[in-house]
Amino acid sequence: MKTTDKYIDENKDRFLEELFELIRIPSISSESAHKQDMIRCAELWRDNLLKAGADKAEVMPTEGNPIVYGEKIINKKKPTVLVYGHYDVMPVDPIELWNTDPFEPVIKDGKIWARGADDDKGQSFMHAKAFETMVKTDTLPCNVKFMLEGEEEIGSGSLAKWIVKNKKLVKADVILVSDTSMIAADVPSITTGLRGLAYWEIEITGPKADLHSGLFGGSVANPLNVLCEMIAECMDRNNRITIPHFYHDVEKCSKRERELLNMAPYDEEEYKKSLGVKALRGEKGYTKIEQVGIRPSFDLCGMWGGYTGEGSKTVLPSKAYAKLSCRLVPHQDHEKIAKLVQRHFEKNAPDYVSVKVTPLHGGEAYVCPIDLPAYKAAEAAYMNTYGKQPIPMRSGGSIPIISTFEEVLGIKSILMGFGLGEDAIHSPNENYRVDHFYKGIETIIAFYQHYAEMA
Amino acid sequence: MKTTDKYIDENKDRFLEELFELIRIPSISSESAHKQDMIRCAELWRDNLLKAGADKAEVMPTEGNPIVYGEKIINKKKPTVLVYGHYDVMPVDPIELWNTDPFEPVIKDGKIWARGADDDKGQSFMHAKAFETMVKTDTLPCNVKFMLEGEEEIGSGSLAKWIVKNKKLVKADVILVSDTSMIAADVPSITTGLRGLAYWEIEITGPKADLHSGLFGGSVANPLNVLCEMIAECMDRNNRITIPHFYHDVEKCSKRERELLNMAPYDEEEYKKSLGVKALRGEKGYTKIEQVGIRPSFDLCGMWGGYTGEGSKTVLPSKAYAKLSCRLVPHQDHEKIAKLVQRHFEKNAPDYVSVKVTPLHGGEAYVCPIDLPAYKAAEAAYMNTYGKQPIPMRSGGSIPIISTFEEVLGIKSILMGFGLGEDAIHSPNENYRVDHFYKGIETIIAFYQHYAEMA
Repeated sequence: MKTTDKYIDENKDRFLEELFELIRIPSISSESAHKQDMIRCAELWRDNLLKAGADKAEVMPTEGNPIVYGEKIINKKKPTVLVYGHYDVMPVDPIELWNTDPFEPVIKDGKIWARGADDDKGQSFMHAKAFETMVKTDTLPCNVKFMLEGEEEIGSGSLAKWIVKNKKLVKADVILVSDTSMIAADVPSITTGLRGLAYWEIEITGPKADLHSGLFGGSVANPLNVLCEMIAECMDRNNRITIPHFYHDVEKCSKRERELLNMAPYDEEEYKKSLGVKALRGEKGYTKIEQVGIRPSFDLCGMWGGYTGEGSKTVLPSKAYAKLSCRLVPHQDHEKIAKLVQRHFEKNAPDYVSVKVTPLHGGEAYVCPIDLPAYKAAEAAYMNTYGKQPIPMRSGGSIPIISTFEEVLGIKSILMGFGLGEDAIHSPNENYRVDHFYKGIETIIAFYQHYAEMA
Repeated sequence: MKTTDKYIDENKDRFLEELFELIRIPSISSESAHKQDMIRCAELWRDNLLKAGADKAEVMPTEGNPIVYGEKIINKKKPTVLVYGHYDVMPVDPIELWNTDPFEPVIKDGKIWARGADDDKGQSFMHAKAFETMVKTDTLPCNVKFMLEGEEEIGSGSLAKWIVKNKKLVKADVILVSDTSMIAADVPSITTGLRGLAYWEIEITGPKADLHSGLFGGSVANPLNVLCEMIAECMDRNNRITIPHFYHDVEKCSKRERELLNMAPYDEEEYKKSLGVKALRGEKGYTKIEQVGIRPSFDLCGMWGGYTGEGSKTVLPSKAYAKLSCRLVPHQDHEKIAKLVQRHFEKNAPDYVSVKVTPLHGGEAYVCPIDLPAYKAAEAAYMNTYGKQPIPMRSGGSIPIISTFEEVLGIKSILMGFGLGEDAIHSPNENYRVDHFYKGIETIIAFYQHYAEMA
């Protein structure tokens, strides 16, 4: 038995008990009543890092919730790993749907049941215990820095500013994060991509005031009809976006990576059933996994105009509105796309309406190349603990702070998530498998060993 | 001087004073506080008809406001004219915008200023005074029946039922109505058509619940995008409705009638300016007057779905909704069209969504052929009093009770309106030109003379 495995085994109950202490603090970042809990939670993390063997650890104030920073520098010539996690959690409503107290963790059916059990107290604490294990068994092969924020669930506003000011402090070679899921308990995976986002509000104005649909209908453009037409023209029969140059910068995924992505188990019938649809709709030539993982999307998030009440009021409305969003993929610059789409709608506006497009929000996509040494190290680590190669997985969602890290610090993040889809994060009865907690610790330790050799 | 003209001239001040008495009763049908005023107004009409020379006149109760019925039968072999009008008026809000008391008529700048001065007390009372003039000068050439309702501004619900029960009582050869406008004071016109209406609510369901637009966007149909596409497909580049068989029953207007319709003065620059648009949009091959007069329309009256609040919430909504209306033209059966459009949307629904279409409301179009003897009589009457041929005018709007008359009683209505666009009906400072009041009386008398000869 390896010394690290032995250490984990001897301390396994304590590890769990320490995690429970962290979970017991109701650190809900979106509720101001929990302001003091945020500070208590940050302080407990600091104390944990110090006990685990950090050279230093501190609670650093921000305009919002504090950031916990800790480090252990063993040798400036060795590579440095920056661990990122968050100690804030989501609210617990509707509380009546919880089977147990969300802030009093219990173990049942091999799982920890509590708010934050997975997201992200359970997952981030694995890094603290992996660190402790390596320090105490004298096997830590890299420098380690910890950075934990208390605002991940509300947009990471303070951290985005804090890293700009603390670039030097957090200087590292790679960021290690456990805040995502794996495909299944026996199908290890690493999230290698997150989509970016661009978001617009479109306002179409026809006549200057609402008109009588009888006296004018048929001779005047109806802005709702025009908006429908303009949106419809943006997608062709193959479900490809037709806006010129939209795909110009889209990352071309290697055949090898596409093969790996598609190794993820996927049951189309099961998927359709879970969504309640008879058929799917996506870009021709790509699998469902690729459609959400490596291809951009074009979705109305909202649309409104005219009469929307009960019954049948006739009106030819003056204005029509839509909220449009595109998920973006690596190499697509969200600001460039924002302008491209804005210009497209404004340029193609028929002369019988005026069109105003306002970009509202955006963020870059993130991708971790699978030939990166740090990725290879993670892959090797999973091979050790799971006995099989992890599948690289592109998530369709966006975690803006991950691309911000790359932008500001110039380094990649490795997203080694050990959660499962069934963990009910953000929902009642959040849970995290106990064996994933321990296996995560082992895999993280294995990552450090491989990374020290490869980096 | 004709005896009728002499009679009008000798009684002109009294005619106006009697109209003012009618106007002074605030018979606002949509406000229940005026229930007693409705009855008072109906009773005053009855008294007026009796004094004018009716054989009988009565206030007939309904579930809503009473109907005034009066008649004078001179000879059962002579043709019978049924006069229709309404004694109810619109509310007066915003009262602060009125320059004078809406229920105390004043004459200024050659106009009567008051609520109901045009719509429809002023216009309907011309018929009472034309009738009186003919009776008192012994020149009445037809039988006359009067039918005045008190719910025109709130949908004519009671009258629609009443005529079914009183078919025999109101049996006539033609209906004569003054409740519309003419093109301009020096451009007499007769409204020969009103459009019908069909109205639907469309509900499109994609996934059974709102989805994360990142995790699913690109692989699942978005019901808002689908709704846009389905609406856009209903109109081609020539702004023709593409739903199969939609135009199947559309009345083919004769070249002559189209020529006459287009004699109405129309200034495109002025029209665009009044609407605040740089360009118009309508079916290719038809003038603006034809587009709203003799061609059907396809307009969204409302549309909604997803997030419609401030800022940029991302969501892939489960449902999308639209309120769709088509103005219909003569020979299009509104129930047939309702089913046609419903089936079109349901049949063409892509298999990745489900579509539900609910017809909400409908009414038939109305058309008065310009070769009808009664129309010819009206035309000749305008020639007498205005010295020029009136232009047949198709209104884009709908007056459902007019098509109900045709449906139930099997007779046509002649819409001899003497109002003007500037009369501010339904608005503050409603007015009606005094010279139109007298000229209307003369024209109505001329109609009776011509009709008696032609019918």
